[in-house]
Amino acid sequence: MSPQRRSGLGTNQEAIRRHNLGTLLRHVHGAGQISRAELTTLMGLNRSTIAGLVGELESLGISERATAPEGARQGAGRPSAGVRIAQDGPYVIAVDLGVDRAVVARVGLGGQVLQRAQAPVSSDGEAWQVGAAVAALIRAVVEDVPGSSSLVGIGISVPGLVRRSDGLVRLAPNLEWHDVSFGGIVLAALGLDIPVSIANDADLGALAEHTRGAGVGVDDLIYVSGNVGVGAGVIAGGHRLEGAGGYAGEVGHLRFNPDGRPCHCGNQGCWETEVGAHAIAEAIQCPAAKVAQLDEVLDGFDQASPELRATGTALGQGLASIVNSFNPQLVVLGGYFRSLYRLVSTEVNAGLADRALPAPLESVTLALPGLGADSALLGAAEIALEPLFVDPVAALGTALDDVQARLAG
Amino acid sequence: MSPQRRSGLGTNQEAIRRHNLGTLLRHVHGAGQISRAELTTLMGLNRSTIAGLVGELESLGISERATAPEGARQGAGRPSAGVRIAQDGPYVIAVDLGVDRAVVARVGLGGQVLQRAQAPVSSDGEAWQVGAAVAALIRAVVEDVPGSSSLVGIGISVPGLVRRSDGLVRLAPNLEWHDVSFGGIVLAALGLDIPVSIANDADLGALAEHTRGAGVGVDDLIYVSGNVGVGAGVIAGGHRLEGAGGYAGEVGHLRFNPDGRPCHCGNQGCWETEVGAHAIAEAIQCPAAKVAQLDEVLDGFDQASPELRATGTALGQGLASIVNSFNPQLVVLGGYFRSLYRLVSTEVNAGLADRALPAPLESVTLALPGLGADSALLGAAEIALEPLFVDPVAALGTALDDVQARLAG
Repeated sequence: MSPQRRSGLGTNQEAIRRHNLGTLLRHVHGAGQISRAELTTLMGLNRSTIAGLVGELESLGISERATAPEGARQGAGRPSAGVRIAQDGPYVIAVDLGVDRAVVARVGLGGQVLQRAQAPVSSDGEAWQVGAAVAALIRAVVEDVPGSSSLVGIGISVPGLVRRSDGLVRLAPNLEWHDVSFGGIVLAALGLDIPVSIANDADLGALAEHTRGAGVGVDDLIYVSGNVGVGAGVIAGGHRLEGAGGYAGEVGHLRFNPDGRPCHCGNQGCWETEVGAHAIAEAIQCPAAKVAQLDEVLDGFDQASPELRATGTALGQGLASIVNSFNPQLVVLGGYFRSLYRLVSTEVNAGLADRALPAPLESVTLALPGLGADSALLGAAEIALEPLFVDPVAALGTALDDVQARLAG
Repeated sequence: MSPQRRSGLGTNQEAIRRHNLGTLLRHVHGAGQISRAELTTLMGLNRSTIAGLVGELESLGISERATAPEGARQGAGRPSAGVRIAQDGPYVIAVDLGVDRAVVARVGLGGQVLQRAQAPVSSDGEAWQVGAAVAALIRAVVEDVPGSSSLVGIGISVPGLVRRSDGLVRLAPNLEWHDVSFGGIVLAALGLDIPVSIANDADLGALAEHTRGAGVGVDDLIYVSGNVGVGAGVIAGGHRLEGAGGYAGEVGHLRFNPDGRPCHCGNQGCWETEVGAHAIAEAIQCPAAKVAQLDEVLDGFDQASPELRATGTALGQGLASIVNSFNPQLVVLGGYFRSLYRLVSTEVNAGLADRALPAPLESVTLALPGLGADSALLGAAEIALEPLFVDPVAALGTALDDVQARLAG
């Protein structure tokens, strides 16, 4: 068909085919490995259309044949033809930037962490210094990448408020950043021109836990991230709650104790001043220098002091406001709350039960992240992979191969 | 075509046609009057398909021809053919149940209130007594209905937590209702069997303000309802935020002043104890017997006392938690907050600015409801009309004509 004739119905059909190809890839990505029969059912397309799409994904180097889905060989029947993510297929770089350390990973489809590196970052460093440190970690994680694999994009998680429209970091209070274009800084440090997506850490934690963590199949969930600051990522009705500018979920600044500690936001007694890392550290008399290892310190305790139990109560009482406001089915406790919750789950649940209304309380469950400490990291991978699910052909068209050589040059 | 042959493609085409018919009706409903040319653009269908759908709506008695949309006769050009809601077309009954009074209206497509009635209700009455009072109001508003008009359903707004799955009123604290099936009670009192939808008043206020009030075209808005209790209805990304059970938006119980007044929920110092009707009444020394007319009392003031200004500050400070949590573009202040805001807008805005984070603060606007005191009432009409937009043919098939005679019988 000549280019001139690819218009009208032809273009529509091509758009639908690419859309179907992306949707099929999203299913393979979610499941890791899946049978053609399952794809036929999930997508409502006939077997020959599915076969054609699967063949195209294979020829693009994205997927490969699998004899049978994992766990499907239980009976004596013939194994059904399956699809799985290809070895050496396209990948993304995921960056989880914390207040005191950066974690960078090369992540493939299916959420596989293929290589990872991390380094401390100084919270009083300039954004360009942090960008240079992140760029060095990126160079490290692509060291062993095969030349045939191509980089689709970079996803970055930051502990701050990110403007949805352009990814500008409006405020990362504990890094003391205001209006920082961190994505551009990282690209400049790498000398690459490639799609970069950036979002709030709690929003990405929620996304990843919903996609492949504790919240798979749960349409209303909240990921509460307890680090130096406290924030929430909200999935409502199966979709990310972003708000008008992308800033929804700043629950760390819920009014909690009007006579309480001063907060960096200028107010007193915000919830994060009562349950954030500094409050936890104070409760266990952890020296300031060790706040960055607060989870390890907490993991060393086998019982909670009265002060730590009070922190647990405050955590539960604040969660009650979240449960009353959002009526989630699941609240995932991330960051330092993972270690804290193991010690004071009784107090957290009591604080929640004490202050939540009975109707939203009865249907909510508190849980630890299914992805451990990697929720935000894998959420960053998800937003970087997203273009592949919209149009795999177009996304691969702009992806970079031989990244290692380009970075060396 | 014989019934046997209405399968496969035929049934699909029929489903698509009915879907298109409902979508076209939704556009006419939203605009009140609209030209065929606009419908062609909005729906992406060709002129003859639109003409066919418009003809079908006319033959169903739902719409009628209009020579030109209002305001379109500015130039000397030929008036374009238009569509408007038919006189004597289908209608719904909308019920806005408050703690102290019920308002009932007969509402047509386009959100037209065709007839209304209201009566006080006793907050210590049993649910069946309130149901009987509402049924009497319903009988009153259908008195003049033409026999050819048919009743599609009943929509009810209640000041409480409503379970989404079945409309059970789990809790209406200020009516002292627990697990009341109020929709069923009203139908029993009427002796009718007809679809009844029931939802929280603030959720319905948000829906109506989004559809035809202050928030038309605003995808992220919050309607905060200030009555005896305080609650919020949230539109996020263009859709109602319902939560897992339908209870999202219970912001009246945000922790505000841990040493404050006792709240009916069992806690102390919830936000609604500082800004709800009783707090406002106390600030203006309004006797308890007149709390039901609090808006009229407030409208009689031309300046605010220091106590009322403090209530305004508390309103703004609590709104800051809502703005930080949901990042709305618009906050609509309903219920008694309408009258309060006129007196203390400076304090409300200062309280908000004092405690909201700069990024979500800079894009939010506070507004009064575009629908005055009728937001929840018209939201109740919207949920009752909804089946008409899903499938007008099916909804009219189950609608009741000659309602007046049925109710008399």
